[in-house]
Amino acid sequence: MATKILNAAMLGLTPENMSSHEHLPSELDASLLNTSTVIALCVFFALLCACIVIGHLLEENRWANESITALLLGLCAGVVVLLIRKGESSHLMKFSEDLFFLYLLPPIIFNAGFQVKKKRFFKNFTTILLFGIFGTVISFCIISLGVFWTFKKIGVRSLNIKDHLAIGAIMSATDSVCTLQVLSQDETPFLYSIVFGEGVVNDATSIVLFNSVQTLDFDNIDGFTALKLIGTFLYLFFTSTALGLAAGLLSAFIIKTLYFGRHSTDREFALMILMAYLPYLLAELLNLSGILTVFFCGIVMSHYTWHNVTESSRITTKHAFATISFIAETFIFLYVGMDALDIDKWRESKASAGTSAAISSTLFALVLVGRAAFIFPLANILNCFQKIESSKIHFKQQFIIWWAGLMRGAVTIALSYNQFASSVKSPESALMITSTIIVVLFSTIVCGSVTKPLIEAVLLRHRKPMVSDLDDNVSLEELRVLLLESGDPNNSNNNQPARRASSLRLLISHPTTTVHYFWRKFDDKFMRPVFGGRGFVPFVPSSPTGAADDSSSA
Amino acid sequence: MATKILNAAMLGLTPENMSSHEHLPSELDASLLNTSTVIALCVFFALLCACIVIGHLLEENRWANESITALLLGLCAGVVVLLIRKGESSHLMKFSEDLFFLYLLPPIIFNAGFQVKKKRFFKNFTTILLFGIFGTVISFCIISLGVFWTFKKIGVRSLNIKDHLAIGAIMSATDSVCTLQVLSQDETPFLYSIVFGEGVVNDATSIVLFNSVQTLDFDNIDGFTALKLIGTFLYLFFTSTALGLAAGLLSAFIIKTLYFGRHSTDREFALMILMAYLPYLLAELLNLSGILTVFFCGIVMSHYTWHNVTESSRITTKHAFATISFIAETFIFLYVGMDALDIDKWRESKASAGTSAAISSTLFALVLVGRAAFIFPLANILNCFQKIESSKIHFKQQFIIWWAGLMRGAVTIALSYNQFASSVKSPESALMITSTIIVVLFSTIVCGSVTKPLIEAVLLRHRKPMVSDLDDNVSLEELRVLLLESGDPNNSNNNQPARRASSLRLLISHPTTTVHYFWRKFDDKFMRPVFGGRGFVPFVPSSPTGAADDSSSA
Repeated sequence: MATKILNAAMLGLTPENMSSHEHLPSELDASLLNTSTVIALCVFFALLCACIVIGHLLEENRWANESITALLLGLCAGVVVLLIRKGESSHLMKFSEDLFFLYLLPPIIFNAGFQVKKKRFFKNFTTILLFGIFGTVISFCIISLGVFWTFKKIGVRSLNIKDHLAIGAIMSATDSVCTLQVLSQDETPFLYSIVFGEGVVNDATSIVLFNSVQTLDFDNIDGFTALKLIGTFLYLFFTSTALGLAAGLLSAFIIKTLYFGRHSTDREFALMILMAYLPYLLAELLNLSGILTVFFCGIVMSHYTWHNVTESSRITTKHAFATISFIAETFIFLYVGMDALDIDKWRESKASAGTSAAISSTLFALVLVGRAAFIFPLANILNCFQKIESSKIHFKQQFIIWWAGLMRGAVTIALSYNQFASSVKSPESALMITSTIIVVLFSTIVCGSVTKPLIEAVLLRHRKPMVSDLDDNVSLEELRVLLLESGDPNNSNNNQPARRASSLRLLISHPTTTVHYFWRKFDDKFMRPVFGGRGFVPFVPSSPTGAADDSSSA
Repeated sequence: MATKILNAAMLGLTPENMSSHEHLPSELDASLLNTSTVIALCVFFALLCACIVIGHLLEENRWANESITALLLGLCAGVVVLLIRKGESSHLMKFSEDLFFLYLLPPIIFNAGFQVKKKRFFKNFTTILLFGIFGTVISFCIISLGVFWTFKKIGVRSLNIKDHLAIGAIMSATDSVCTLQVLSQDETPFLYSIVFGEGVVNDATSIVLFNSVQTLDFDNIDGFTALKLIGTFLYLFFTSTALGLAAGLLSAFIIKTLYFGRHSTDREFALMILMAYLPYLLAELLNLSGILTVFFCGIVMSHYTWHNVTESSRITTKHAFATISFIAETFIFLYVGMDALDIDKWRESKASAGTSAAISSTLFALVLVGRAAFIFPLANILNCFQKIESSKIHFKQQFIIWWAGLMRGAVTIALSYNQFASSVKSPESALMITSTIIVVLFSTIVCGSVTKPLIEAVLLRHRKPMVSDLDDNVSLEELRVLLLESGDPNNSNNNQPARRASSLRLLISHPTTTVHYFWRKFDDKFMRPVFGGRGFVPFVPSSPTGAADDSSSA
């Protein structure tokens, strides 16, 4: 069905067809718009429709998913455009960093924060931070060094040290978008939270590293530089998080205070969208990491704000945020697919197919090694600190974490364009961009389609009860039992110091569970009364606008 | 609360404040984005938040509404920007026709079609078409002639005949956006459907007239030109409507056929958004009227597609479309408010305050006369054809229809920029733009704030039971009774010719009700089995994603 519209839209692309309307009276030119924009939008929206329909039809197919469908459909559309324009240019829209970072990425990351299982996420917070920060730095170093050593042997000589380091940062940015599609939050919650959480922190780390490389003065490097870098990162991490938390709490407070008793679904939803987007812009304006900000804003909004609105607002926000994020994701893959055939770049690079393949495979190999170099060692170090056998990350799980994080996506492409397209164009810069595109396409298509079957084969088929995947809901209950047990001997003469000692003992033996328990107590006592949240706001069945529901008969 | 963010966002505007971050390490420059875009977006989103909050607080106030709040807030923001930039320039974003016609107008018009009471709308279809088409042409002629006669006396001499006709078209475009806010679909359903329906058709007519004027060859005007113009208009009207209907039916068919039994709220919602937007783009691409297309697409979608999706999709689409439309509306008024202080244009116009006031008041007076010249005569002509006293449009209602349609809005501004900003700049072109802005501001603020109290004073206070406002739900029942009655004498030997004769008699005496009755029969027999719709699709309680609802505790 949708291909019909698609064809109609594509027809508009040919100059021949444009002039075929000439027989209509000239007064027909009722359009005030820029035709090329309309054509580009038309094609993109038609392709998006096609992606959704095809993705739905392939839902039962475990190898395919919407990302890969979009990527392939984008490639096909690129070929068609290339043929229609007779090899002149393949893309309707140039890859724009503004479009990507301002409009497409924020809804995806916000929705991830909004829908993430918060308990699970914070339980694995140490692991996520370790992988996301240290891991990315390790990967960055290995890829940079690898590029430095190997590229000269292949014959790429004009890149300087800044370019090498930039490639390290560019190739360290994993793709959190496709990960969301191949990992299931319900089937493998532990892996999902680790890989996805790492992806968010990793994106932020990569972007900070990338920017540091660009602004660093390589003539005066000393020990102080590294220290300054660490300070910068910590500053960015904490201020960005704080901004996100503050914006989320502000939205909860406004809706709880102002809208009490006079709910309007449309206003509530509008306010939530705007207040979700605003901190991202503010963070970018203050040169913080917008990704981290919007992610934590999403978490706070789902914990407080979401419970302060009407039932219909809850349903609307939940699905609307998910849908916007889904459209943005599909759009990105379509975009990357269409941009892959950027014929100008391929011509500019002047590289033989052999060189191009050598560079791309070297980069992908470095990505593989760079990721392996931190996942396995760091996971084993973490295992040493875990006393409970079931909380350890098993080798099979490590393998899946390694594999699922290999995908490179739109962040990589955006950074690559930023580094190599804006500077004075040399054939080797163009070669870097085309190689990046090849790595992104290859990793997304191969890793993306293999991950689901791989998880089934490795983890789910011969499934042993891995408790780290199962013990999610019992932990709080467990803790209460532990608290009772440890308090049991002194139960009759329950004095204060003994209790405090037992709390401390628990904090050491079950750190995350204990922190969660005390957070809940703090949340119930101080936070929820002010900011609302589950059970702290009277239930509002539906908004007044909902009353018009059954009056729409024709 | 929101003003805090607002202030923070405004701080970023001053160059002084931008450089106050200099003490931070240079690695902090984590932003890859165009700073001016981020600042503009930040300010706009903060102002939108402020509008919603202030609009909510003023809800009880019958003089104010969100449009006027947005307009005034935009003006204030313009003043602040002007002061910060020391009088250099007042706007963060230039008024862009692409932004307005591509992204802001379509969701508003689509939502209007989606939420309109279809029965009421089609019942008044003749009146709407008469006012929207003939009325606009009358208004266009009167304003053009008035401008032609008066402007030379004021001292504006450089405008040619094309400019005069263009002003006629520009000033004939009523604002359907503010109308939606001041008229209530529940309190005054008849007036709402007339004024709003007329607004949609009127926008289309004005744009066609405007484009006709721009492309017309004034050296060869003959009787054939007028005929060609009518032909063009009919062609545009019917093809645009057909495209909208086809796109709506296609979406209903796809969702009914493909998604049957495997519903996914996010996919359904995504498909509905995309398939609502696509026909607008297609219409613009084919040089049809996108406004008409997207309006009828909205009507079909609410009649068929909306009933084919899950319960949560219904709630989500209903509120999400309304919210998007609401944000777009508020954004437009904010935009117009900020753009009003376009200091460059004011300087360029070189006109004294007196000339400027004279031109603006002349234009507004012509708008008043132009609208009066078709509302009262056409309404009285219509009344002559109505036999039932209660179906006639009373003088008080005529007065409200006249008054509520006086507002001029973003379409007027967009057309004015198109005519006078793109051509070679002359002081008098700039004067036309500033005068248009004054008319828009004045009419929106005055008419917008007075309409609600006026309706209360004129119609609701000394309310007589005006049946045209009340007989909405009984008409079908009425018809069944009529059918029974007319069939009554031949009830025992009910032969076919007598029945047909009685149907024909009914069609003549109750045309709209009869058409509605037969449409319902046709709809139930042929349309709904194919395209779905109320009662023709099994009820789907909720989507699978809804299952995660109660697992989001922290």
